[in-house]
Amino acid sequence: MVIRPYGYAIWEAIQEYLNVKFKETGHSNMYFPQFIPYSFIEKEASHVEGFSPELALVTIGGGKELEEKLVVRPTSETIVNHMFTQWIHSYRDLPLMVNQWANVTRWEMRTKPFVRTLEFLWQEGHTAHATPEEAEMEALQMIDVYTKFAYEQAAIPVIAGRKSKVETFAGATKTYTIEAMMGDRKALQAGTSHNLGQNFSRAFGTQFMDENGQREHVWQTSWAVSTRFVGGIIMTHGDDTGLMLPPKLAPVQVIIVPIWKKADERTGVLNAASSVKEILQTAGIKVKIDDSEQRTPGWKFNFWEMKGVPLRIEIGPRDVSSGSVVVSRRDIPGKQGKVFGISMESSSLVPYVKDKLDEIQSSLLGMATSFRDSNIVDVCSYTELKEAIAQGKWARGPWSASDNEELKVKEETGATIRCFPFEQPQGKKKCLMTGNPADELAIFAKSY
Amino acid sequence: MVIRPYGYAIWEAIQEYLNVKFKETGHSNMYFPQFIPYSFIEKEASHVEGFSPELALVTIGGGKELEEKLVVRPTSETIVNHMFTQWIHSYRDLPLMVNQWANVTRWEMRTKPFVRTLEFLWQEGHTAHATPEEAEMEALQMIDVYTKFAYEQAAIPVIAGRKSKVETFAGATKTYTIEAMMGDRKALQAGTSHNLGQNFSRAFGTQFMDENGQREHVWQTSWAVSTRFVGGIIMTHGDDTGLMLPPKLAPVQVIIVPIWKKADERTGVLNAASSVKEILQTAGIKVKIDDSEQRTPGWKFNFWEMKGVPLRIEIGPRDVSSGSVVVSRRDIPGKQGKVFGISMESSSLVPYVKDKLDEIQSSLLGMATSFRDSNIVDVCSYTELKEAIAQGKWARGPWSASDNEELKVKEETGATIRCFPFEQPQGKKKCLMTGNPADELAIFAKSY
Repeated sequence: MVIRPYGYAIWEAIQEYLNVKFKETGHSNMYFPQFIPYSFIEKEASHVEGFSPELALVTIGGGKELEEKLVVRPTSETIVNHMFTQWIHSYRDLPLMVNQWANVTRWEMRTKPFVRTLEFLWQEGHTAHATPEEAEMEALQMIDVYTKFAYEQAAIPVIAGRKSKVETFAGATKTYTIEAMMGDRKALQAGTSHNLGQNFSRAFGTQFMDENGQREHVWQTSWAVSTRFVGGIIMTHGDDTGLMLPPKLAPVQVIIVPIWKKADERTGVLNAASSVKEILQTAGIKVKIDDSEQRTPGWKFNFWEMKGVPLRIEIGPRDVSSGSVVVSRRDIPGKQGKVFGISMESSSLVPYVKDKLDEIQSSLLGMATSFRDSNIVDVCSYTELKEAIAQGKWARGPWSASDNEELKVKEETGATIRCFPFEQPQGKKKCLMTGNPADELAIFAKSY
Repeated sequence: MVIRPYGYAIWEAIQEYLNVKFKETGHSNMYFPQFIPYSFIEKEASHVEGFSPELALVTIGGGKELEEKLVVRPTSETIVNHMFTQWIHSYRDLPLMVNQWANVTRWEMRTKPFVRTLEFLWQEGHTAHATPEEAEMEALQMIDVYTKFAYEQAAIPVIAGRKSKVETFAGATKTYTIEAMMGDRKALQAGTSHNLGQNFSRAFGTQFMDENGQREHVWQTSWAVSTRFVGGIIMTHGDDTGLMLPPKLAPVQVIIVPIWKKADERTGVLNAASSVKEILQTAGIKVKIDDSEQRTPGWKFNFWEMKGVPLRIEIGPRDVSSGSVVVSRRDIPGKQGKVFGISMESSSLVPYVKDKLDEIQSSLLGMATSFRDSNIVDVCSYTELKEAIAQGKWARGPWSASDNEELKVKEETGATIRCFPFEQPQGKKKCLMTGNPADELAIFAKSY
C-alpha cells in the first residue's frame, strides 16, 4: 500500500487529534522493535493461533540464514511484555501507559486499499495495571476516546460495544469495538480496545510486588486505530461525485477557484483570490488556491468535488468589482449549495466560512446517522435475521446462543456479530436463535 | 532498539521542528511500502553493492515460501522510483517533492544505542526535478535545513560539507553531510542530502515529457535525518553527571522539586509548587513537578541532572513565606549555577525562566563549539595527520589525492574523510599526501 499525500494528510489529522487525547489521558509515546523473535509469538497460546497464518517472516539477515526466524510485527503485545517484564518491579512502576505510532504487517490474501492491506500504519496503546478494575476502566476509557473521535471529528456514527467471544482479539479476555456502516452497508471495525487480563503477563512472567510485598501478574490492555480509518471516512461520506470530507479532518477545507476570460481581468481576479486566501489562512482555515492555467474552471470544480473539499469559493471579475465571492458547499449538491454575493471583508467572510464548515461537519454526521438507522433492522428470529442480511442490512436482535450457533450464522449468511452495543434497551428479551432468555441485543452484519 | 518515552520525546521535538520546515519548503508527507521486491534493489548497480550486505529478507509470508524475496527497506529510493515512474508523465508533474517518516532496517553487526542500530526511525525526503540545477539546489537547500536545525535547535556545531567520492551514498552523484563531534571526539554523520542525478531514473525508466515534447529522465534527490540524532544530542552535551539537553528540544525544560521537613509545611509547599507549575505551563514552558514522597530532594536533584533538564526550581517553606524560589542551571555546575530569591510572581518569573533557557541554549552551543574547535588540528602532511588522529583529534588539511590513497588513510589510521567543508579558506593549497595542488581542505576523523 502506498499512501499518497492527500490521503496521508487525513491520517496526519487523525494522528494530531488522537496524540493529544492519548497524552491527556496519561500515555507517553515510545517505540518497540518491529522484529519479534518467533518464540515470543508462541508464548501466548491463543495469540499464536490467531496470528500465525498471517505472519511475514525474516529468515535471512546480513547475508546469513538466521538461527531464529523473526516475525515482522503484526501487533506488539509479545515484545511489549518482554520489555515490560524488565521494567516493572513494584506497584510504584504502575500504571505503565505507553503508545506507539508504527507500521504493522499482516499477510492478507484479499487486499483492499486502506481497509485491508498487507502493511498498514496504526497506533497501538499498551498499558499495565495493578488491578483488574483499573485495566477494565482503561480499556473502556480508550474505546470512549475512539468513539468521540469518530462522532466529533470523522462524522462517523459508529456503534460502540463488546465483541462476542468468537470475535475477541487473540489473547484478550474482552474486546471493545467501534463499528461503522460504510456506504455499501458493510460494517467496518474502525477501532478496538482490549482488556488482556493476565494472559500476556502470565505467558511472559510480567510481575510486580504489591503494597503487601506479594508478587502478582499485571493486568493489561491494548488498543489501536489504523489507516483503515482513512478508508472508513472515504467509504462513509462519499457520493457518486467522489469524496466528501468532514471539515475537521479535511486536508483542504476551502478551495478557491479564480475565474477570468479576458487577459486584463487576470491580475485583478488573482489578487482578490490571494487576499481571500490570506484572510482565511490567518483565521486558521486550511485553504488552497487552484490557479493553474491549464485547466478550465469546470474541470477544477469537478476535481475538487471529487477530492471532497467541503467549501469552494469562486471569484470572477464581477465579484472583484462587487467585493464579494460565491461560496458552494460540497454536501448540498449543485446549485442549491451555491450562495452568491458573500462579502470578501474579513469580518464577514471568516465567520461565514467557519459557520458553514461547522454546518457541513454536522450535516455529514446527520446524513450518515440517518443512513445507518434506516439500514438497521430489528429482528426476532433467525429467519428475519437471514432476510435482513440478504437485503444487505444490519440485523439487530437478542442473542444468547452458543459459539457454534454464531459460527453457523456466519457460514449460512456471511454475517458476523459486530458487537453487543453498550446501549441496550430495557426489558426481558428472548434469543433470536434459541428462544432462551437473552440479556443483550447483538448486531449482525457483513464486514470488510 | 527500544526507544523509551524520554528519548522518544526528544525525537518528537525533532520531528515537530523538521516537519514544519519540510512543509515550508514545499514537501508533502506520504508513505511507501516497507517491503521491496529484491529485483528492485538490483536495478541500480552501486546501490545493490552498497546495501546488499546489510539486508533483512522476508522469505515466508502467510505460511508460504515467497516466489520473490522481499527486502525490508534499508532506504526507499528503489520503491520510490518504481512509484514515481507511474506518477510522472510531463513537466507539469514536476517538481515532485515528498517525505516520509518511517522505520528502516540495516543488518548491523556492531550496534550501539541510537547511533548504530538494526532498526531505526528516520525521515527520508525524495524529490524529482526537470533539471540538474534544480536537483542540486534542492540537495543543498535540505542540508542547509539540517545545518540550521543542528545549530539552532540541537546546539550542535556541525560541519556541513560534501562527502568524498569514496564516502558518497550508494547510488548518488553527490552526498552532502553534516558532521558532529561527539564528547569522545568521534565524528557522527548526523544528516545527509544526496543529489542522485539520473542514476535511479535511468535504472527505473522515470521519464517526463519536457516543454518541447522530448522525453527525459528526471533529476532526483534524497535526504534523511534519523533517531541517530538523538544519540548525537546525548553524546554532544553530556558530562560526568549525565545528560545536558538543549532547552529547545528538552522534553522537560523545568523540573520543580518541592522540599519540606515537617508535616505541616507540606501543603503550603505543594500548593506553591503547583502554582509555579501553572504559571510556567501557561507561558508555554515544558514543566514538571517531582512530588513523589518516596525519594529525597537530593536523590531528585541527581536524577533530573542526569536526565539533563536545563533548569531546576526548588521550593521550600522559607521560599513560600518570602514568595520566591531557588533556580539552578544544569549547564553551570554546583553552587555557581544556583540563584536564590527569584520572585514567584508570574510577571518576573516567566521572563526570568525564558531568559535562562535562552542562555542555556546558547551556552551549550558555545561550549560544544569551543570543544570542537580545540580538537581540530590543521595538518600539512600525512605525518601530521597520523599524529592528530592518534591523539583522538580531527585533522583538517588540503586533499586532492586518489581514492586509493584515501582508503590507505582509513586502513592505517582508522580515520575517514568526513567531508570537504563548504567553508574553505582562500588561497593556494598543496595536498597533504601528494604535494600536488589541492582546491579544498578535507576533514579526517574516526567515526561511529
